Amino acid sequence: MMTPSDVIAAADITFSCVSDPQVAKNMVFGNCGVLQEISADKGYVEMTGIDADTSQDIAEAISSRGGRYLEAQVQGSKVQAEEGTLVILAAGDRSLFDDCQSCFQAMGKNSFYLGEVGNASKMNLVLQVMAGVTLAGLAEGMALADRAGLQQKDVMEIMELTSLACPLMIEKGKAIIEGGFPTHLPLQHMQKDLRLGMLMGDTLELPLPLTAATNEVFKHAKRLGYGEHDVSSVYIRTRF
Amino acid sequence: MMTPSDVIAAADITFSCVSDPQVAKNMVFGNCGVLQEISADKGYVEMTGIDADTSQDIAEAISSRGGRYLEAQVQGSKVQAEEGTLVILAAGDRSLFDDCQSCFQAMGKNSFYLGEVGNASKMNLVLQVMAGVTLAGLAEGMALADRAGLQQKDVMEIMELTSLACPLMIEKGKAIIEGGFPTHLPLQHMQKDLRLGMLMGDTLELPLPLTAATNEVFKHAKRLGYGEHDVSSVYIRTRF
Amino acid sequence: MMTPSDVIAAADITFSCVSDPQVAKNMVFGNCGVLQEISADKGYVEMTGIDADTSQDIAEAISSRGGRYLEAQVQGSKVQAEEGTLVILAAGDRSLFDDCQSCFQAMGKNSFYLGEVGNASKMNLVLQVMAGVTLAGLAEGMALADRAGLQQKDVMEIMELTSLACPLMIEKGKAIIEGGFPTHLPLQHMQKDLRLGMLMGDTLELPLPLTAATNEVFKHAKRLGYGEHDVSSVYIRTRF
Amino acid sequence: MMTPSDVIAAADITFSCVSDPQVAKNMVFGNCGVLQEISADKGYVEMTGIDADTSQDIAEAISSRGGRYLEAQVQGSKVQAEEGTLVILAAGDRSLFDDCQSCFQAMGKNSFYLGEVGNASKMNLVLQVMAGVTLAGLAEGMALADRAGLQQKDVMEIMELTSLACPLMIEKGKAIIEGGFPTHLPLQHMQKDLRLGMLMGDTLELPLPLTAATNEVFKHAKRLGYGEHDVSSVYIRTRF
Repeated sequence: MMTPSDVIAAADITFSCVSDPQVAKNMVFGNCGVLQEISADKGYVEMTGIDADTSQDIAEAISSRGGRYLEAQVQGSKVQAEEGTLVILAAGDRSLFDDCQSCFQAMGKNSFYLGEVGNASKMNLVLQVMAGVTLAGLAEGMALADRAGLQQKDVMEIMELTSLACPLMIEKGKAIIEGGFPTHLPLQHMQKDLRLGMLMGDTLELPLPLTAATNEVFKHAKRLGYGEHDVSSVYIRTRF
Repeated sequence: MMTPSDVIAAADITFSCVSDPQVAKNMVFGNCGVLQEISADKGYVEMTGIDADTSQDIAEAISSRGGRYLEAQVQGSKVQAEEGTLVILAAGDRSLFDDCQSCFQAMGKNSFYLGEVGNASKMNLVLQVMAGVTLAGLAEGMALADRAGLQQKDVMEIMELTSLACPLMIEKGKAIIEGGFPTHLPLQHMQKDLRLGMLMGDTLELPLPLTAATNEVFKHAKRLGYGEHDVSSVYIRTRF
Repeated sequence: MMTPSDVIAAADITFSCVSDPQVAKNMVFGNCGVLQEISADKGYVEMTGIDADTSQDIAEAISSRGGRYLEAQVQGSKVQAEEGTLVILAAGDRSLFDDCQSCFQAMGKNSFYLGEVGNASKMNLVLQVMAGVTLAGLAEGMALADRAGLQQKDVMEIMELTSLACPLMIEKGKAIIEGGFPTHLPLQHMQKDLRLGMLMGDTLELPLPLTAATNEVFKHAKRLGYGEHDVSSVYIRTRF
Repeated sequence: MMTPSDVIAAADITFSCVSDPQVAKNMVFGNCGVLQEISADKGYVEMTGIDADTSQDIAEAISSRGGRYLEAQVQGSKVQAEEGTLVILAAGDRSLFDDCQSCFQAMGKNSFYLGEVGNASKMNLVLQVMAGVTLAGLAEGMALADRAGLQQKDVMEIMELTSLACPLMIEKGKAIIEGGFPTHLPLQHMQKDLRLGMLMGDTLELPLPLTAATNEVFKHAKRLGYGEHDVSSVYIRTRF
């Protein structure tokens, strides 16, 4: 078995992608962690969905030992990963971003360099907030349709012809109709991002009533046992 | 000047499209109204965005005088109207729906017949609720981005590559960046539909926390004076 | 059996208290209804919890037949009714208010005359909105305490010493701890008032985010089957 | 000038009451901080409104150096402080709680010992959440009354006779009517507690839709510049 520090020692550039900010921090600062072996010729790319503060903490620790740090946040779920159409949002060390291009190309067709550490995390949370609210709205609309005696497949058929049609709505609408919720993007992953988005709004003193309401709905779905199901299972809470 | 009853007298099929359910009712039941001239060889098509109860009241009054009634709700705004890509949702008299096909074809490429009176109104409200929540989420995300020091044009450029990209998000995102809010779909029109959607949820005893929060945000924007601006001006409330 | 019109014929002043605005209207405008027998020497006192529009409709109909009309809204539940400490909020015909004093004294120690028809309904809804939000907050706090491993009886014991202590909080806090929810004030009654309060806010274009969120929570509790239980059973939804 | 460590060195028992959890931590862990001088014969009482995690961090650090730690949270604002009717909620070292009795008696008539470190912080947040929701509901009701053309003083006069009457509602209702908002309890203080309450709910996976909506309303009021005004100035946001 290899420890994080073993991996750093063995590779020039290491990519990390774990479950949440706390685990990402443990990976770096923990026992036999990344920091132990990081040095001037090493690069560390954090791909975990994290907040800007966590990213800055990691960036400082790595820089202070001479290492290069890049935060690289991923937009897209299992479907996009399989298609190689993930979008990579990166910020931090520009030379490391350039060195990662071949890897990023393999994951997705598009990568963006957004400047200083934190910008990619923030951009990722902005997009996740918009996706979360949209999905909760989809679920609420589908529940309303069902309760009103409308066919949900009619809702989707019509929606695909309106200006609201996007791959996410169509894919998740189908998942709601089928009811199986196979996991492309775990619900608890999006709830974590909604929580981080709320903290971002708190820090910036920006009221976010929609995000706040959405976060509570996702929390409720998680509590009902759907944390590891697909994000579309938020529907279960809505139609409860 | 022609009164509503004059119009009915002069035409075989009359299309009505006014501002809200109350005005639609006045048109039918009021002085010199539709009912006065409706008869067995007349058709009446209600295209105002209304609730199912209002539509049923109108349907009954028209049927009781032998007339044919169709509710035909429109999905799409000025852009779709100009492009002829509106979507028509219809319910009620099937033969009238068939007789209207040439008119509907001129407005949009797609029309749906959804069965008994009320179904088209309900379907329209379901779609409006989903669009309203999505737009309020977009506005909240754009405000969060701005506050966090991110470029809103970067948000849009990235979003266009994700599974959240839909014409509505892209069009309204651009309107938010430009800040002019020229009116394609008036904010007060969508707020009216959110209110009707809430009443539909009340009747069906379905909790709709997202729609409720969205309705309050739209009400706030309206109160700040943006009722006649485009629906994208809900952003002003969000970034307030 | 007596019809509403029989009652009006038999009495000088008639008091009405039914379940909601629609039933109140039916009582007046329906078959064998109040209007049939109302005349110059008759008084009609509406004690049903209604909205101002409904009250004005009834007022006009009764006045147009020469009758006197008073809206009299009641603050308080079964406990206050038994103690004779209900508060009566009245508006409309001043002479009828005066004539009702002995009756109002029997119900409660305090009655207020608030001017023109509608004012008492509005005042009642304002108070109900504040009570509903407060109760939903109490339920949420009690659920949070329980989840955090605190004793709910400690919460109540401490709260009784703070500036938040009021008979409603104390009574409903105890009901939550005991868990029986014997009905002093039915949950669906308060949800109706929250809904009417929301409509009042809609008409006045006043955003009411707290009332909106509270109304959805009460709707959820009602849907879970607690409509006829006491208002304190909103806790069930909260700790769900 | 005395540093925190100077104070610890000079006293047997030290009471800390600062603005928020971060400042409380800095006081203990910072340069010339509490930890430097804490020892077996010293007691440290944290009276800052904090979350349980922060309290536990401080508790561990102090215990590890042999010191005694008590968290003592205060319910009540300037009015209660002047009257000596504050309520003290304490948890942690029982002997230190006993040794503090004379001090606690001077501040308030009631103090509670709630067991292990964290319990007092949690209890305080539960009460603050309930108070915050109640106040936001009061503000919303008062705004609704005003918009509806009712006299706010009538609202208060009637409310004082209902089961909702509590010192907090009466005091803050008067502040809303007077409009001056002299600071008894700073709005940003309560917003901080609502934020901590939300984090507590996040950790416990408990949906708190009311607290979430209230927190956003308080954040909005803070952003409008009322952070240092009294908590009753949340009304300004509501009637905006």
